[in-house]
Amino acid sequence: MRVVILGADGYLGWPTAMRFSALGHDVHTVDNYLRRSMHAVNGSDSLTPIRRFDERLAAWEEISGREITHTEGDLTDYSVVERVFREFEPEAIVHYAEQPSAPYSMASRTNALDTQVNNVVGTLNVLFAMRDLTPDAHLVKLGTMGEYGTPNIDIEEGYLEITRNGRSDRLPFPKLPGSLYHCSKVHDSTNIHFASRIWGLRATDLNQGVVYGVETPETVLDERLATRFDYDEVFGTALNRFCVQAVIGHPLTVYGEGGQTRGYLNIRDTLRCIELAVLNPADQGEFRVFNQFTEQFSIRELADLVRQAGAEVGLDVSIEPTTNPRVEAEQHYYNAKHTKLLDLGLEPHMLTREVVESMLRAIRRHRTRVIAEAVPPRTRWRAPQSQLA
Amino acid sequence: MRVVILGADGYLGWPTAMRFSALGHDVHTVDNYLRRSMHAVNGSDSLTPIRRFDERLAAWEEISGREITHTEGDLTDYSVVERVFREFEPEAIVHYAEQPSAPYSMASRTNALDTQVNNVVGTLNVLFAMRDLTPDAHLVKLGTMGEYGTPNIDIEEGYLEITRNGRSDRLPFPKLPGSLYHCSKVHDSTNIHFASRIWGLRATDLNQGVVYGVETPETVLDERLATRFDYDEVFGTALNRFCVQAVIGHPLTVYGEGGQTRGYLNIRDTLRCIELAVLNPADQGEFRVFNQFTEQFSIRELADLVRQAGAEVGLDVSIEPTTNPRVEAEQHYYNAKHTKLLDLGLEPHMLTREVVESMLRAIRRHRTRVIAEAVPPRTRWRAPQSQLA
Repeated sequence: MRVVILGADGYLGWPTAMRFSALGHDVHTVDNYLRRSMHAVNGSDSLTPIRRFDERLAAWEEISGREITHTEGDLTDYSVVERVFREFEPEAIVHYAEQPSAPYSMASRTNALDTQVNNVVGTLNVLFAMRDLTPDAHLVKLGTMGEYGTPNIDIEEGYLEITRNGRSDRLPFPKLPGSLYHCSKVHDSTNIHFASRIWGLRATDLNQGVVYGVETPETVLDERLATRFDYDEVFGTALNRFCVQAVIGHPLTVYGEGGQTRGYLNIRDTLRCIELAVLNPADQGEFRVFNQFTEQFSIRELADLVRQAGAEVGLDVSIEPTTNPRVEAEQHYYNAKHTKLLDLGLEPHMLTREVVESMLRAIRRHRTRVIAEAVPPRTRWRAPQSQLA
Repeated sequence: MRVVILGADGYLGWPTAMRFSALGHDVHTVDNYLRRSMHAVNGSDSLTPIRRFDERLAAWEEISGREITHTEGDLTDYSVVERVFREFEPEAIVHYAEQPSAPYSMASRTNALDTQVNNVVGTLNVLFAMRDLTPDAHLVKLGTMGEYGTPNIDIEEGYLEITRNGRSDRLPFPKLPGSLYHCSKVHDSTNIHFASRIWGLRATDLNQGVVYGVETPETVLDERLATRFDYDEVFGTALNRFCVQAVIGHPLTVYGEGGQTRGYLNIRDTLRCIELAVLNPADQGEFRVFNQFTEQFSIRELADLVRQAGAEVGLDVSIEPTTNPRVEAEQHYYNAKHTKLLDLGLEPHMLTREVVESMLRAIRRHRTRVIAEAVPPRTRWRAPQSQLA
């Protein structure tokens, strides 16, 4: 199958590209290296030393004997999108190419606008290219569980069956996004659903939980194939950041009461979920939504797990309650359905103490690369008081 | 009260500015005259001969003895927004300043992007200005009933009370927008709701039905105070366009089966609704949603009403079923709640045959200005077949 990976230089994009190539598909990648330039501006960097994208591609070809073709470019430039769709004629489009940081989107007005315009325009360009050039192709779009927020009822997979006064309908599940980044993903979902209804496009929206892990079957083949691993306050996510804090001897920064519960999954399961979505495409005109995670944890549970795993590998880990920089419920109901990918064949890798121990060991190999000043939270969801009139 | 009207050169913006001024409020207006330049590009124009904005303001001051101050500028330019909020310090912001045409948004990829970027960025700039400069002000934002689409259950006012497995919550009512313009309004609602939840802003989203009518108490005071009246395929809406077709002897173009049912209201009721929303502000942190219309009609019912009223004023009106250029249900359930504005004191002007007769008479005064070629639908919701690969 011809698969294009948008945002192929990222944490998940690069392993996904190698995975589809390893499975024998024709893979074309697109990236504008935005994450690399944003890290340069922030004074932060990937924990793992990652190679330039052309070096990655060359190493992959050397090791696997398979070629991945590539376009450097920005999805907000339609000439790039049009060229990729016209020349490569993708049958599946895996779309990771978005500004993915909630703190980044909340740090300033210009960051908020950059995030929403970049994500909405890039995705609209992909939808128009599909409509006009590859109307039978299947879009596999990375959304986020953060679109739903923390409602006081069970979170369904994308739709809610509602019966009122003897009438019923299946409507989009209501969203309560928690940052202007998360709002941009809700906007994308609204636009993609529209394109499916009106233009008959095939689309799968993967509302993904928080991904953890350093290695995939392909990244471990050669150090040049390593994927990025972000732990800083802008791009790092909960469990990955706790593991880095544990390794450098920094207390784990639990925001507020630590009762914030979310869905999590192993990076190896992300790859399998994408594969399952691509190999089992949505129907023409169908906007399909899967909740892509395997287990739920509270922040406090994760911190305890990292402390226990740390003890096993000789790290003395402490936990430090931190004023929550976000505006979010710290104790809440959370029960999100996630059966559709299991029904397609997903066999989850569960988060055990042993898994955390292996993450700690992998991180320890790069200990000297950690930029400690990049870890503590600085971005606040509320406006600084000084800005208020 | 200090009230700023964003988009004050429009069909509803200009009468709203005069109304608040007449009621004794301090009014500041903002517009970039986008509609005028778009009409110039399209070869269309307002039915009513409208004056330049500075002439309108001068005429209003001459007739009423009240000054309305004005800023020419674009909300996507934050320096404009910041200056208005800093200098005028609004207590209420009435926000009409968006690209409002569904057909425009569907005519091309660039139109779609223009619409979504213009509307989303302009509204985000307003939210940031409120957060940083006037955190106690109240945003009254014009949304549209078209955000909801035509679900098979009753449409509530913004929220849905849901009980599942013994738990309940009040969540945003699911949306099924019918064009990329309507999607942009859903994006706005998502962003404004977020700003209310996270920053504590006061906001009222007015999901307005289709507005009809030519005159308001202020526009009739002097011909220089007339508001615009659009009847072309891009900016005209159903009933207003039918009335123009009746006057020029063109058959009424009913799309498809004509069963499409929507909420409608008189332009005089729009002004009263805005006034009620402004005088009864939302609480701090509250995102309030009102469905702003007074009656539901199907397209076929409106066409019949215009035919009957036409007969009374000597017009021989015929109805011509037309291939529907849109993708929408032509027979569907529709029952939208609209009690919140009635509870605040709205006394609706109902759509009677006499009201249509008075519209036909008002339009007939400008009969020679009608550009007949601008009326028939040209924009199609589906891609032209020639564009498909």
